[in-house]
Amino acid sequence: MSSLLANFEYSTLGFKDIIVKLDGAVATITINRAKERNTFGAAFIKEIVEAFDLLDKDDRVRVVIFTAEPNAPAFCSGANLPEGDEGWSGLFDSEAEKEGSHAHRDLGGVVAIAIFRCRKITISAINGHVVGAGATALQLPFDFRLIWEGAKIAFPFVRRGITPEACSSYLLPKLIGNSTSLALFLTGETYSPTHHFLRPLYFSVHPNRTDVLPAALKLANNLAENTSQPAIASTKALVWKAKDTIEEQHILDSLVFRGLAGNQDGTEGIKAFKERRKVRFQDTLGDLRWELRPWWTEVETRHRKAKL
Amino acid sequence: MSSLLANFEYSTLGFKDIIVKLDGAVATITINRAKERNTFGAAFIKEIVEAFDLLDKDDRVRVVIFTAEPNAPAFCSGANLPEGDEGWSGLFDSEAEKEGSHAHRDLGGVVAIAIFRCRKITISAINGHVVGAGATALQLPFDFRLIWEGAKIAFPFVRRGITPEACSSYLLPKLIGNSTSLALFLTGETYSPTHHFLRPLYFSVHPNRTDVLPAALKLANNLAENTSQPAIASTKALVWKAKDTIEEQHILDSLVFRGLAGNQDGTEGIKAFKERRKVRFQDTLGDLRWELRPWWTEVETRHRKAKL
Amino acid sequence: MSSLLANFEYSTLGFKDIIVKLDGAVATITINRAKERNTFGAAFIKEIVEAFDLLDKDDRVRVVIFTAEPNAPAFCSGANLPEGDEGWSGLFDSEAEKEGSHAHRDLGGVVAIAIFRCRKITISAINGHVVGAGATALQLPFDFRLIWEGAKIAFPFVRRGITPEACSSYLLPKLIGNSTSLALFLTGETYSPTHHFLRPLYFSVHPNRTDVLPAALKLANNLAENTSQPAIASTKALVWKAKDTIEEQHILDSLVFRGLAGNQDGTEGIKAFKERRKVRFQDTLGDLRWELRPWWTEVETRHRKAKL
Repeated sequence: MSSLLANFEYSTLGFKDIIVKLDGAVATITINRAKERNTFGAAFIKEIVEAFDLLDKDDRVRVVIFTAEPNAPAFCSGANLPEGDEGWSGLFDSEAEKEGSHAHRDLGGVVAIAIFRCRKITISAINGHVVGAGATALQLPFDFRLIWEGAKIAFPFVRRGITPEACSSYLLPKLIGNSTSLALFLTGETYSPTHHFLRPLYFSVHPNRTDVLPAALKLANNLAENTSQPAIASTKALVWKAKDTIEEQHILDSLVFRGLAGNQDGTEGIKAFKERRKVRFQDTLGDLRWELRPWWTEVETRHRKAKL
Repeated sequence: MSSLLANFEYSTLGFKDIIVKLDGAVATITINRAKERNTFGAAFIKEIVEAFDLLDKDDRVRVVIFTAEPNAPAFCSGANLPEGDEGWSGLFDSEAEKEGSHAHRDLGGVVAIAIFRCRKITISAINGHVVGAGATALQLPFDFRLIWEGAKIAFPFVRRGITPEACSSYLLPKLIGNSTSLALFLTGETYSPTHHFLRPLYFSVHPNRTDVLPAALKLANNLAENTSQPAIASTKALVWKAKDTIEEQHILDSLVFRGLAGNQDGTEGIKAFKERRKVRFQDTLGDLRWELRPWWTEVETRHRKAKL
Repeated sequence: MSSLLANFEYSTLGFKDIIVKLDGAVATITINRAKERNTFGAAFIKEIVEAFDLLDKDDRVRVVIFTAEPNAPAFCSGANLPEGDEGWSGLFDSEAEKEGSHAHRDLGGVVAIAIFRCRKITISAINGHVVGAGATALQLPFDFRLIWEGAKIAFPFVRRGITPEACSSYLLPKLIGNSTSLALFLTGETYSPTHHFLRPLYFSVHPNRTDVLPAALKLANNLAENTSQPAIASTKALVWKAKDTIEEQHILDSLVFRGLAGNQDGTEGIKAFKERRKVRFQDTLGDLRWELRPWWTEVETRHRKAKL
């Protein structure tokens, strides 16, 4: 266990828009903006990105749950639109605007990429309505989506004169295919999670708002106890960063398998199986060896003059 | 509104195999070949391509519905096969044949690409059976497919010694995935729209043949009144012409979003939302600005000696 | 009919772990390791690869069914794990290990690629439980999967400290999408074929174990009698080896269509259709002409010092 974060306490971060709690290997992030319908604002985004960056690196963490108060008016109703007549420009960064409109970086996408890059298991426990950035950034980059049956889901962008953001035009088609993704994006209508367009997006659908987080915790604890951290990280990458041909994937998955099989977790996994007992996995991403080096290039997304 | 087609009347085109009508922002194309089971012939194809090319450029048009007579023997039963023993060669173009067999261009694909490239909302209102090119070119390149519950659907190519055409081997897997696409293509059998292989392909399934067009018109009018033309065109492109990585898509969707947000429709979209009133979108593709320039290359598909 | 295998008898191969029978145009491979829960071992793998290589080249063969004894304890319960404490290393090849761990080639992937490359119709008749390599290599590379309703299906890799192998991280997402693929891979839990995550993976689900092979044979005989061998091979390649853009696919599928349409099977297909009679297809892959030349590169997957 080599993590610099071994004794880190998330409460010291002084977050205001989210609450991060770590209970064993399961972290829970709860949105703390019920009065503002849990909307996206600049501080909210900064805190989510920072939280996922840290949770990704914290070797204690195996699963991250993202949720909201079950009695909030919405799980997330999208961007926190500025009052008055200024339109969308309230969402633009002044420094980027000085560089030029090409320097704009959609904040939903910044959040989506932070979640997407987190190498731990990520679960969105959607216990309320999701609209706009709530339906994109706070649903699609997660590994699992558990949802309340009564949730209203909408991607209303074309009805607002804009386009689906937060990399949703990349993620949704890969998650469920182009046919139903286009139906959702081009109508911009409100749908239920049990609608056949959306059902494959959800791991499970729950009758009451208060059922969603307990179900997420049950899944999280099961996976935290029984899965290997490097195996999870590698599996996510093999799926999302797959090669173009089956032969290249064969060479790649052989390399990853050979590396993991020789690690402690690989040895423990087969031993526990033979001894018909529960596993005790100990390898962490902080112990990274060659076999987990990224085989893809992480494209730099910041605009030229962005502050580091 | 800069369109050269502002006062164009489609009836002046003298089409014979299709009827094009424009009612407000909704164009309806009806196949006019019921006696020939609405089969594909050279004139039919030429007219469809010309219609979609014009409707794409006509700023008045927001939605294009494609349909057939509800009492026709079929919505489209495929290619209009020549009588006699000449086999498929009746479908070959003499000029291309002189250049060589590599110069052959499948006519179903020519139609599919014309529909696929149309930047407006496209709806196929399938109120009858579809077979062969009817099931490929006249279904798959559309944004929405509404269908009669009793329709028989078949991709019988391998049972005729040939392969799925009209770019269907590109479109169907992206729409619904390889597992069910291969089941449809390799059996070549007849299926119902409610079969689990096909259900995700359809926006809605209707009990009677006469129900399909009214449902399509209702959807079309809703979308024509409530969606932005540049937002629709950009959303379609973001999905179909997505980048290879999430980071590149983030840079791209930020650019598109920033452009649209600053347009009239973006401003109107947020204003109407705040004022809780209906939108009045006015931007058209004829007003195209930099942010809608294609970020992909449109490959030239004509054979070398094709007439321009 | 130019096949060198025209009179070949599969019984002469002396296979021990599988039984290969040819009945007309339908070959059936049955796993012969019921006592070992039909697990993957080195000999088993070698025989499967050799069988699929030969069946691919044997012009008599139109369909290959892969199945197991319906009373075996499992259809396939994964790798044949060595006794004792040696962990996964019993699965490693000594020659490759001498070259270095980068030379490891996953044996599930070797099997998957052999099945995937077979240009005939391939059917997995899954009449028992499938776990690990059984659920990956013996399901995913096939064109059709028919399964027993009671089968337990698990991809338990992350619970053993390793990653999904046998190119499953390539195949499963393309077959059914990333959303449900990740749910299956990251939970590693046991699922039923009727679970909504898995249903699109299966052509049909059967109440009894003894129902699966008869259903597979019925499908196989139907397709053997009614489909063209070069048309099947080309269709599979058009789907799996699709081009990046619709325009390139149009140029490609036009070329393939033009080639097949001019072959005997193309001529017979249209003739039989016009005469409303059953087809009698005779073209074989041994008669390969230019139009079926691969348009993709087959990547060499062997490690450097592998014996040829």
